[in-house]
Amino acid sequence: MVHPRIGGARESPIMTNPAINLDTDRLLADLDTLLAMPSLGGTAAEVDIQRHLAREWRSEGLLVDEWDIDLEQITADPEFPGMEVARAQAVGVTATLAGTGGGRTLLINGHTDVVPPGDLGAWSADPFTPRLEQRGGIDVIVGRGACDMKAGLVAGWAAVRAIAASGVRLRGDVIIAPVVGEEDGGLGTFALLRHGVSADMCIVPEPTSLDLVPANGGALTFRLVVRGAATHASRRTEGVSAIEKFIPVMHAIAAYEAERNADVDPLMARWPLAYPISIGTVHAGDWASTVPDLLTAEGRLGVALDESVDDARSRLEAAVAAACSLDPWLHDHPVEVQWWGGQFASGRTDLAHPVITELGEVHRELTGADPLIYGGPYGSDLRLLSGLGGIPTVQYGPGDAARAHAPDEYVPVDEVITCARALIQMILRTCA
Amino acid sequence: MVHPRIGGARESPIMTNPAINLDTDRLLADLDTLLAMPSLGGTAAEVDIQRHLAREWRSEGLLVDEWDIDLEQITADPEFPGMEVARAQAVGVTATLAGTGGGRTLLINGHTDVVPPGDLGAWSADPFTPRLEQRGGIDVIVGRGACDMKAGLVAGWAAVRAIAASGVRLRGDVIIAPVVGEEDGGLGTFALLRHGVSADMCIVPEPTSLDLVPANGGALTFRLVVRGAATHASRRTEGVSAIEKFIPVMHAIAAYEAERNADVDPLMARWPLAYPISIGTVHAGDWASTVPDLLTAEGRLGVALDESVDDARSRLEAAVAAACSLDPWLHDHPVEVQWWGGQFASGRTDLAHPVITELGEVHRELTGADPLIYGGPYGSDLRLLSGLGGIPTVQYGPGDAARAHAPDEYVPVDEVITCARALIQMILRTCA
Repeated sequence: MVHPRIGGARESPIMTNPAINLDTDRLLADLDTLLAMPSLGGTAAEVDIQRHLAREWRSEGLLVDEWDIDLEQITADPEFPGMEVARAQAVGVTATLAGTGGGRTLLINGHTDVVPPGDLGAWSADPFTPRLEQRGGIDVIVGRGACDMKAGLVAGWAAVRAIAASGVRLRGDVIIAPVVGEEDGGLGTFALLRHGVSADMCIVPEPTSLDLVPANGGALTFRLVVRGAATHASRRTEGVSAIEKFIPVMHAIAAYEAERNADVDPLMARWPLAYPISIGTVHAGDWASTVPDLLTAEGRLGVALDESVDDARSRLEAAVAAACSLDPWLHDHPVEVQWWGGQFASGRTDLAHPVITELGEVHRELTGADPLIYGGPYGSDLRLLSGLGGIPTVQYGPGDAARAHAPDEYVPVDEVITCARALIQMILRTCA
Repeated sequence: MVHPRIGGARESPIMTNPAINLDTDRLLADLDTLLAMPSLGGTAAEVDIQRHLAREWRSEGLLVDEWDIDLEQITADPEFPGMEVARAQAVGVTATLAGTGGGRTLLINGHTDVVPPGDLGAWSADPFTPRLEQRGGIDVIVGRGACDMKAGLVAGWAAVRAIAASGVRLRGDVIIAPVVGEEDGGLGTFALLRHGVSADMCIVPEPTSLDLVPANGGALTFRLVVRGAATHASRRTEGVSAIEKFIPVMHAIAAYEAERNADVDPLMARWPLAYPISIGTVHAGDWASTVPDLLTAEGRLGVALDESVDDARSRLEAAVAAACSLDPWLHDHPVEVQWWGGQFASGRTDLAHPVITELGEVHRELTGADPLIYGGPYGSDLRLLSGLGGIPTVQYGPGDAARAHAPDEYVPVDEVITCARALIQMILRTCA
């Protein structure tokens, strides 16, 4: 049955394994259902979507483990990677297609949380009413989370379902693990690893346009606190504007960003700026006619491949301190650098590992093209899986990361289906 | 009776008119009562304090006019000077000590609204529990509004009471008019003038350290809206940060401020910066990891003496537009300049007018010192009284304007009493 909302997509003629039947209508219907759930980080829908998946997978005969994440305990963990939205509840889920034993375990990890839609006026329709449209002559599905990354998760689900339905017996386990809180730090994957989940390799179907992304720059959320001295605007020279004092700090950060990006790892060479330092918010003052005595700015520091989080932090702190030392006021009232929210280390997987080489071969077989291999400039759960978890991990999924977090976020239907087929092949190769 | 809270101040040996008895204890008790009322603009206490004064003055036998200001009508007036806080109600009050006829009318105008206390941690005690302290060896009264300008208003009240009690018969009227909404635009004085109140001259006992201030620079509240293009921080070069685009605009404003202040009226020459342009608030972005597409900044433009409001506005707009024309993005997405809130024209009174010359003589008689005469860099109701009202007006009052709006705002007791005595003498000279 063609799904009434986003059904009707045309499937490209791509190679398929005749023994395995991929139910693309069901895949699109599942995607439609997930996209209609506004699973913003920290909302009840973020809990609901996890419970929904657990229910579905139980009904499909998978071995489901569903647990309430102990938020008090997990956030107190010394290695907890941070969280930027309040949560009263969070749910962990794994669904396992159990093998007969002796094979390799493949983990498919995908986050179910989405970022807020932002300015609704920039969307052509409701972000949580998914729809099938044409963009540049191809079928795409539009909706918040379409690209980042419900389509990838549903591709993994469809692959597991196809294997299960085929009667093919695997030796190794396939585990599919939907996680919460990826966008604001990695709560869900951190909890997954602390829950004891492990695997021989992991594929995260984040949007990579079906390129292979075995490495991520990290991302550390920071806050700068700049102090001034308040006075009435009519005698502003008797005060010190925290806004004015922020300007040399911004310039110093820009100069330091250029320095950090002068020579980057070859995996990151495709990016105009591999390790950006971006100021996302600035708030200063509370009265138009008062010289503001406080400015807070929040931003994101890109962590280089192979750079430790501690090094990245102390280097930014040093750049800010150096700027302060040049200004008499800032020398006496140095800008404070605070680290809060998402703290994503960088991460990478050895390019010689089978999760890269075999997935590359599968991609070539399915599409006839060599996959591009490069590192992503964004932080993601990859660094938790490959770092903390020690699981060689690659990102490979449908959709362009540049569409993530943007209005009218979309994912090409062809890429979703190709991703599902690639995951089927990887399951067969890995777990057989 | 010494008032339990702020009583006990020592009075300096200054010249007095033996025929008139100034009740300084009563003056300080009245000040204490007014300072305990948190009459922030837009609050119920701003209404209460007006009603309180009307009640007091009625009981003292003055002719009181008390009216509800028609906010709908007054804010729709084409010349309405602006308002920055919401008000559901506002009260106008005048109290008149009527003369026998044929004399000059003196208006004493003082605002009862106060600005918010700001950071309570910067106060040594509750802002609305007034107290007597010593600062630099002199008695001062500390509390929000002590200096700006409940002490000045109470000095006027005490002067009128002293004249009324003395039995001295005047030919001209003395009108005391407490007003609301001075701090955020001048609602109260605008309504006073629209209500038909007029006079031959006016003294506003704003804090001038008992200097004579016959002129004010104006102050226009503005908002800048800077647009960027949002994208994820990990690919920030694909977006445009509204924060970064604000920096050249800030620099252009600073350069334009220097230009405006290169050559100022001699009355303003004492100020390091006669006509400041100050940015008081900046708000940009809503997510640390998103390149912000919107920045709004609010500030205050100082209007030069004899510069029209229209000229001041169009000159700032031109400076901002010139900065935008130099930047390709800002050229296509120019910064918007909005005018909102308080719109204070500049204003001045002829230095040869008796309100200046006679008050100068009175001050000399009382203190033995020539008064300083200069213009203030702040906007105030003076420009409404002298401009719209055509009433020659001078500011002369106790307290240092640099203490206004600051934590632990205070006023020296001696100056309050000297001000009251000067007002007594001015009433006698003007209205006899």
